[in-house]
Amino acid sequence: MLGNMMQQPLLISSILQHANQQYPEQEIVSRQIEGGIHRYHIKDLNSRAKRLANALLKMGASPIDRIASLAWNTYRHMELYYATSGVGAIMHTVNPRLFNEQVEYIINHAEDRILFIDLTFVEKLEALQDKLTSVEAVIILTDRANMPDTRLPNPICYEELIAAEDDDFEWPSFDENAAACLCYTSGTTGNPKGVLYSHRSTVLHAMASCMPNALNLSSDTVVMPVVPMYHVSAWGAPYAALMAGAKLVLPGNGMDGKSLYELIDSEQAELLLGVPTVWLTLIEYMDKIGKKLESVKTLGVGGAQAPLALAKAFEEKHDAYLMPLWGMTETSPLATFVTRNKKIDSLPLTDRYKMQTKAGKPVFGTEIEIFDDNLQTLPHDGTTYGNLKIRGPWVIDKYFKNDSTKDFVDGWFDTGDVATIDQDGYMQVVDRKKDVIKSGGEWISSIDLENAAIAHETVKEACVVGVPHPKWDERPLLFIVPVEGKQLTKEDILEFLTDKIAKWWMPDDVIFLAELPHTATGKLLKMSLREEYQHHLC
Amino acid sequence: MLGNMMQQPLLISSILQHANQQYPEQEIVSRQIEGGIHRYHIKDLNSRAKRLANALLKMGASPIDRIASLAWNTYRHMELYYATSGVGAIMHTVNPRLFNEQVEYIINHAEDRILFIDLTFVEKLEALQDKLTSVEAVIILTDRANMPDTRLPNPICYEELIAAEDDDFEWPSFDENAAACLCYTSGTTGNPKGVLYSHRSTVLHAMASCMPNALNLSSDTVVMPVVPMYHVSAWGAPYAALMAGAKLVLPGNGMDGKSLYELIDSEQAELLLGVPTVWLTLIEYMDKIGKKLESVKTLGVGGAQAPLALAKAFEEKHDAYLMPLWGMTETSPLATFVTRNKKIDSLPLTDRYKMQTKAGKPVFGTEIEIFDDNLQTLPHDGTTYGNLKIRGPWVIDKYFKNDSTKDFVDGWFDTGDVATIDQDGYMQVVDRKKDVIKSGGEWISSIDLENAAIAHETVKEACVVGVPHPKWDERPLLFIVPVEGKQLTKEDILEFLTDKIAKWWMPDDVIFLAELPHTATGKLLKMSLREEYQHHLC
Repeated sequence: MLGNMMQQPLLISSILQHANQQYPEQEIVSRQIEGGIHRYHIKDLNSRAKRLANALLKMGASPIDRIASLAWNTYRHMELYYATSGVGAIMHTVNPRLFNEQVEYIINHAEDRILFIDLTFVEKLEALQDKLTSVEAVIILTDRANMPDTRLPNPICYEELIAAEDDDFEWPSFDENAAACLCYTSGTTGNPKGVLYSHRSTVLHAMASCMPNALNLSSDTVVMPVVPMYHVSAWGAPYAALMAGAKLVLPGNGMDGKSLYELIDSEQAELLLGVPTVWLTLIEYMDKIGKKLESVKTLGVGGAQAPLALAKAFEEKHDAYLMPLWGMTETSPLATFVTRNKKIDSLPLTDRYKMQTKAGKPVFGTEIEIFDDNLQTLPHDGTTYGNLKIRGPWVIDKYFKNDSTKDFVDGWFDTGDVATIDQDGYMQVVDRKKDVIKSGGEWISSIDLENAAIAHETVKEACVVGVPHPKWDERPLLFIVPVEGKQLTKEDILEFLTDKIAKWWMPDDVIFLAELPHTATGKLLKMSLREEYQHHLC
Repeated sequence: MLGNMMQQPLLISSILQHANQQYPEQEIVSRQIEGGIHRYHIKDLNSRAKRLANALLKMGASPIDRIASLAWNTYRHMELYYATSGVGAIMHTVNPRLFNEQVEYIINHAEDRILFIDLTFVEKLEALQDKLTSVEAVIILTDRANMPDTRLPNPICYEELIAAEDDDFEWPSFDENAAACLCYTSGTTGNPKGVLYSHRSTVLHAMASCMPNALNLSSDTVVMPVVPMYHVSAWGAPYAALMAGAKLVLPGNGMDGKSLYELIDSEQAELLLGVPTVWLTLIEYMDKIGKKLESVKTLGVGGAQAPLALAKAFEEKHDAYLMPLWGMTETSPLATFVTRNKKIDSLPLTDRYKMQTKAGKPVFGTEIEIFDDNLQTLPHDGTTYGNLKIRGPWVIDKYFKNDSTKDFVDGWFDTGDVATIDQDGYMQVVDRKKDVIKSGGEWISSIDLENAAIAHETVKEACVVGVPHPKWDERPLLFIVPVEGKQLTKEDILEFLTDKIAKWWMPDDVIFLAELPHTATGKLLKMSLREEYQHHLC
């Protein structure tokens, strides 16, 4: 027997509609690509998104159409988010930091028909345009006065496009499982893979994100997503902030310390979202100018494990809580959090900082578990390594245009991470599965070894890979890039590690390099080192 | 094109599963019907709910079965909630305060097969049992030592029932639109009508309830639902609290001031939920003992408009915020809130108290609107009266076993209330539609008139109804029950009202009565007064 409740679909347009009805005067403040600060209100976003929706429908956007963006965090990108998904088309956010070949692959693979770009990416697109097979129109996110001189054929001016339209528009209703947004992951191997979010997954993810056990968003919050809208939808902040009626502060392309601080301070941002390197940039700048982040209460940090020193620095210098959160493109992304709570606050600071290097515990809706290679669950003791799997209504169940079921077994998505889960449910990623070193039946975390080595003052960068070993299957090799102008010996670093790691973790050799291989998005390319050094110990 | 995300159904069992995985050690504290305080942890609730699930399946509970309860807020009732919906049966909470005839009607109409009752309701059931047509088994929510001497045939002891079972149980997965819970509304006319909630509606309602713009529930919260679990699922607190990992404090049948205060104080409850009369009882008791509610931050109040004096008293004497919330059985029930926020806090206290008599603004998921009789929307100016309608995924779309579409037009549920909505989206119920007085094309709120009259110190109870009038269609009649032993004249009261209401609102006559007619749940029976006095002005 079914319940007798309304079958209202969970649609992205319902978020904007709610925000416009309940918080029309709430501000959205953006650093503009053309320079200066732009501010308007949710009611203006609503009106302009509706104009854009009318324009998109004239351009032929329909449920099967992909509309792509190469753009920073601004109000115009927000309008594009809501208009595209709102009319039933798919918002494909392209990461402009990828190599041109990857951008080309992604846009062609997604079959994007309309492309919206910021001024900063005109040149990149000029270099690519001849290779794009599906794009029919390019819109530049600016006004007439700032339209660039470009080799792009018939570029459309965004402000002219929407000025020509009416803001009278009724968002259509459709299946909540319809595709809403598309985002590609850039792995260290193979072509990027697409994750196709639905309206349902996006709305449920936003609802969970608003909860106090997660981002804790209310109409009082001033939230500034520094994580880009081209990277997993800025962790969903454009949706969650509007759902909560929060004030949204968008940094545009002002990602340097000075620009970030000025915007934080002028808008009194309380909750910031970003990756560790951004917070390192910010704290270095704050150290330089000798000021305190007065308004900031919480800095959500994700994308990589935050160093303990970062949590300590924000606490002690800025009275701000660095809140780890974890997820992947495949998980929308938010799944786990180290939310500040009474228990965390009751810990001695050194223990608390340690907690703040973990990935966190799941918010309602996501479930995580660690498994051994025989698919048996492993104990939650904080030390046992296992393959981390996740499931829930905002977790992927297949890649876009890809029928491989390799990562999807028994209803779980295999993250490819190796992790521990402690007694309280806090998860910690210890390594990528392909990078963990399997030595004599036990696992060694390459990341933990790298973190131990990087703590040496003469080490600029460290990388650990497992290479074949005749007796132990694999043993760790440590690669070091020393700080410029400094010298370091193998004995120095091994001696330094002695009291920091288990004895059997000790690298079998140390190799000094001038630089390490990286992907376009800055990830270490361990694969190439593993290949090059595969015979080093055999 | 559909998204590629997991199709995990939103099931009530997933709430318990999440709570058990993430907050197994969180406490649930109950005042026992047998006396004394009981405390255990979420992991115990989980284990006992699974035992009960095994027992229910042996008793033949299946998706079409209704399982009823006549019970207070205790851990055993919690177990019943989760086990019943968890196995796919329907949890029917029966309101024991209804007249016996209504209880009989409800249980027979619902076709309840199994009945779980608290010790306090054994006598009530004995009086009813011969008239119940579907009930096959009665379980008494107690242990063997406390089993009563009863005329009920073969009563089953709850603790024995579950002790015989294993706690190894896997919650089944099924359609999230499956029916989960059933609750009857008791109107002032006709038979009670059933509202059949789905798993989806219940889970979405709980997610919204956790948000900071709503109840603001986290794993730090200590929440005490004083509103009974037999009344619209204690406003969903049994679900939302577990979803957030909050500590749950259940008052059992200890609804007097002393019992409430002792539990609040010993458990340091922060968030309380209840109807105005309960908070009046509590504050009177606190006045009597001359103590402060130290732990309480927020008192959610709903079910009726809270008097301004109550908000003022809690603020000034207890430093606690009385938070209005509004909803109906038909809306799961939570829909709107006057959440404490910066804007509310910035108001002068007298204005803030006024705001705290409103019903609130919608949380994400519910949408409200006011309409005139021609289905045109009306301005949100805080003064225009309109028919209040609501829609959203936890709003009813038909009554149980009832095909009437009268209240369901154009996708909205007609609440039967007359309300205003102000510029900021705050709604205020001004009257029931059938009670509003239509005088010369304008509407007069019977409730506002009653509130004005009740402010007179010699008025114990006041009631206003509209009766036919040759010139104005309807005019208000005021009925007064004076404070015992006191005298009052028509002139006194009309004089008193002069500067408190619009001149054209002035009642055409005042009638003094020894008592007013009420329903079983304490609602004024205006209908009978309207009938009796229909010729009074003609």
